[in-house]
Amino acid sequence: MRRFNYIETAVMLATVLQWLVLATITGTIVGTGTSLFLHALHFLTDHPAVFIPLWVQMLLLPIGGLLNGLLLYYGRRANTTGLKDSAIAAVHHQNGRMPFKTVLVKPVAALITLASGGSAGKEGPCSHIGGTLASGLGRVFGLNVELQKRLVACGVSAGFASVFGTPIAGAIYGVEVLAIGRIRHDFLFPAIIAGVASFEISKFWGIPYHYYAIQALPEFSEIIFLKTVIIGCVCGVAAWIFVDLVGWFKGAFNSLRERFNIWPPFMPLLGGILLSVLIIFIPTDYLGLSTHLMDDALEGQAMPYLGFFWKALLVAITLGSGFYGGIVTPQFVIGALVGSSVAPLLGIHPTLGAAVGLVSVVAAASNTPVAAILMGVELFGGVAGTVYVAGASIAAYLVIGHRSVYPDQVLAYPKS
Amino acid sequence: MRRFNYIETAVMLATVLQWLVLATITGTIVGTGTSLFLHALHFLTDHPAVFIPLWVQMLLLPIGGLLNGLLLYYGRRANTTGLKDSAIAAVHHQNGRMPFKTVLVKPVAALITLASGGSAGKEGPCSHIGGTLASGLGRVFGLNVELQKRLVACGVSAGFASVFGTPIAGAIYGVEVLAIGRIRHDFLFPAIIAGVASFEISKFWGIPYHYYAIQALPEFSEIIFLKTVIIGCVCGVAAWIFVDLVGWFKGAFNSLRERFNIWPPFMPLLGGILLSVLIIFIPTDYLGLSTHLMDDALEGQAMPYLGFFWKALLVAITLGSGFYGGIVTPQFVIGALVGSSVAPLLGIHPTLGAAVGLVSVVAAASNTPVAAILMGVELFGGVAGTVYVAGASIAAYLVIGHRSVYPDQVLAYPKS
Repeated sequence: MRRFNYIETAVMLATVLQWLVLATITGTIVGTGTSLFLHALHFLTDHPAVFIPLWVQMLLLPIGGLLNGLLLYYGRRANTTGLKDSAIAAVHHQNGRMPFKTVLVKPVAALITLASGGSAGKEGPCSHIGGTLASGLGRVFGLNVELQKRLVACGVSAGFASVFGTPIAGAIYGVEVLAIGRIRHDFLFPAIIAGVASFEISKFWGIPYHYYAIQALPEFSEIIFLKTVIIGCVCGVAAWIFVDLVGWFKGAFNSLRERFNIWPPFMPLLGGILLSVLIIFIPTDYLGLSTHLMDDALEGQAMPYLGFFWKALLVAITLGSGFYGGIVTPQFVIGALVGSSVAPLLGIHPTLGAAVGLVSVVAAASNTPVAAILMGVELFGGVAGTVYVAGASIAAYLVIGHRSVYPDQVLAYPKS
Repeated sequence: MRRFNYIETAVMLATVLQWLVLATITGTIVGTGTSLFLHALHFLTDHPAVFIPLWVQMLLLPIGGLLNGLLLYYGRRANTTGLKDSAIAAVHHQNGRMPFKTVLVKPVAALITLASGGSAGKEGPCSHIGGTLASGLGRVFGLNVELQKRLVACGVSAGFASVFGTPIAGAIYGVEVLAIGRIRHDFLFPAIIAGVASFEISKFWGIPYHYYAIQALPEFSEIIFLKTVIIGCVCGVAAWIFVDLVGWFKGAFNSLRERFNIWPPFMPLLGGILLSVLIIFIPTDYLGLSTHLMDDALEGQAMPYLGFFWKALLVAITLGSGFYGGIVTPQFVIGALVGSSVAPLLGIHPTLGAAVGLVSVVAAASNTPVAAILMGVELFGGVAGTVYVAGASIAAYLVIGHRSVYPDQVLAYPKS
């Protein structure tokens, strides 16, 4: 006959209490750090009224590249810990330890990248701030290795929650992104508590968030569901092209550097020059965050078929040549562009297509289908949309195969 | 330099196509099977106008018990395959194979249980129908072991999607329930496609579903969030009491049977007699599905503090003595009762408390926190509620420790 076991419940209640405290503190500190970054970014880049002439933009890009290169080069040399400056690697290989002294290098580099027009995202630096601050906190608290790992993951989740404006999806993204094919539940509670705290403190510090209500959502039908799965497949292919382009340019710039023995800080300078040449032909809309393209797509405006490719190309050159920047915002933009341009071909409203596309590309390129579904819920609200978002996200996640924008992501379960 | 790999993408697109077909067929067949069961259940039990006198109810319970006992006893003997009649065991230990000849035994037993007043749920038989039909289909299609396992999981998901009325949460529940501490993503796509198909076909066959819009949801605040986490912890303890009560009565009835060498079919008869005696003191509301209690709680009516305990006790005696029935509806009811009675103590609206409690007990007792979060989304709509549901669900999931209502669930990752 089984006996009631009081001890385990007491331990678990203590665990809950412990993480309520640890994760709330972490979330608050991380949210404050990311808010500082986001305000600086806003200050530097968000001037829709200011028109930048093309020649100025063409000058800015190589300058930004060189500054980025110098900063990262000397920053990396200042990191004498031998630890990799990556939160995912910290969780898997470094017992949750990250270099603390160089915490500002990546965020400042990202500010330079985006201010000079480099095409990249803003969440990489936020998750970096989150992971690094959490790693430092863990050492202050004297946590053991297992708790330290979880605290770093929880800092990453807090960073994503703050930058996305979606506390639950951000938190689960931070957990799901650690490995392909699995969510570890033991990381979830800290992540969600920290995500909510970080999101709240960011709102308190005045970070603005945008949500999109999908108007005119059709009555659910199996046919539309299958059509959104097709959009998901197309987005999976788009995400695949994006991931491979980034990888290809990384490889190409590396080979170039090795063959001609180029000093590393000159590589993003070269990348900036290449971008300057390309924007003679490609609209400058695809530089920087390009979130206005995503907004237009979500409002139902007609988007060019090749838009996603221009964005993917510019991001691949930016990040591949050695600029530092985030890689999730581009996934949003690419997804919204693909979804909204493909949807009308299938007789689906471009707004629904853009929403489904946005989360599908994230599900695929980041290997985070469950976070993507919750992102759909938190960004677009409504229940009917959840079904469309879910089918498409997981289709995209499968189609991309075992590629990932995160080289440190480990493979937990193969997809087929 | 990396090369583009076209083959993997082709393979993954083929995988998507394969599962679109397989899972849609499975979902349609399973949804039809569960619809038949749900209509039969509706026909037998759903007569709110008919008043059953207490003495009739007291007679019905032992008769139902004996019939249940006989049916399960001879049904089990008719199963000559040596395979366990459990979908979770089928996925983990039986290469996705389940006994097909006895597919009707459990559903008919569940109908007898619920019609005679046994306190249990309706989703067990539905997931059973789903798993068994899918296992049979897999053999018809001649699938290999890996695909066969996934098809069974996908049948289970389809069963849950149809009985819950929440296609995505049902599908993810079917995947998450397989193990403690992990979601395997390779099971997700089949599950979601099948879940949606099954839900749609069930609506087509006229199964009614109820959704609850939480009115008067307060503006988000960190304080309310922490309070809902407390509700989650209380629900975790309630779920723990529930799981241990079921286990304790199972053990007690087993010991009794062994000591006095009682013929197995007589055990649920004894259970029925015990229930008959208890309902002299305990309201008969706690017999059967008790979903009206859940509805009342979600409408904000005041609920008795001990309600959850009466429900847990009657379910534990019903299932512990050997009646067959589902074990998820009781989790809904217990959660709604606990949540709505605890909420006013914390200054929270009982409706929010009931909603948060409902999903928290499921998250804990079934070890399915992610499915529980999505269940909150699909049952209650709205985005603000998602945050409350998420924090509480995961807290409850932790507090219950490594207990589970499903003995076949394997432990993938410990919770702390």
